[in-house]
Amino acid sequence: MKLKKGTLAGLPTNLPDEEIFEELLRTSSLRVERIVSTGQTSPQGFWYDQEEDEWVALLLGEAVLEFEDGTLETLRSGDWVFLPAHIRHRVASTSFKPPCIWLAVFGPPSN
Amino acid sequence: MKLKKGTLAGLPTNLPDEEIFEELLRTSSLRVERIVSTGQTSPQGFWYDQEEDEWVALLLGEAVLEFEDGTLETLRSGDWVFLPAHIRHRVASTSFKPPCIWLAVFGPPSN
Repeated sequence: MKLKKGTLAGLPTNLPDEEIFEELLRTSSLRVERIVSTGQTSPQGFWYDQEEDEWVALLLGEAVLEFEDGTLETLRSGDWVFLPAHIRHRVASTSFKPPCIWLAVFGPPSN
Repeated sequence: MKLKKGTLAGLPTNLPDEEIFEELLRTSSLRVERIVSTGQTSPQGFWYDQEEDEWVALLLGEAVLEFEDGTLETLRSGDWVFLPAHIRHRVASTSFKPPCIWLAVFGPPSN
């Protein structure tokens, strides 16, 4: 039987300067990505404003999300947060050592 | 701002005899659960036959999924697998030490 499968573990030996985005799954109703950050942040003044709902967990590392109202949300290894569609946010910081491993799940905006 | 958030990390000091199911998120389009198994398996002859698609990752531990065609799929810490709706499967084994921490994401069946 042919299953779609993979692993969240494992990092390239040489981490590049850019974030690594890997799409693990894409169906008509779900999208799953693994993202590896090593100190990158969103540009100043940039806000994500997404069409989809996002459930995101930080599997490794430490990161800070910033919201338009000024809220700063610190995520540590294992923490997750739900980002409803169009909640404006940016990545204010990501750890380099250890790198940040994000698991992001996207679905259609909920009612 | 009131965010839905939580952590995947952390286990009760005394693990009960039963599996622990925790619903982390439920919206009209996404459902996220954390499940902690400590040696439990599906009953012999029992098959999950789900209405929803499921993307499931094993964050800790080791487990074996069995499929109706006899395929055995061993998952180790970090491994994930996609279970389309109605793919008949059961949990053939779960490790006790360390316990299995599953992250399961459910969405509407894809086309």
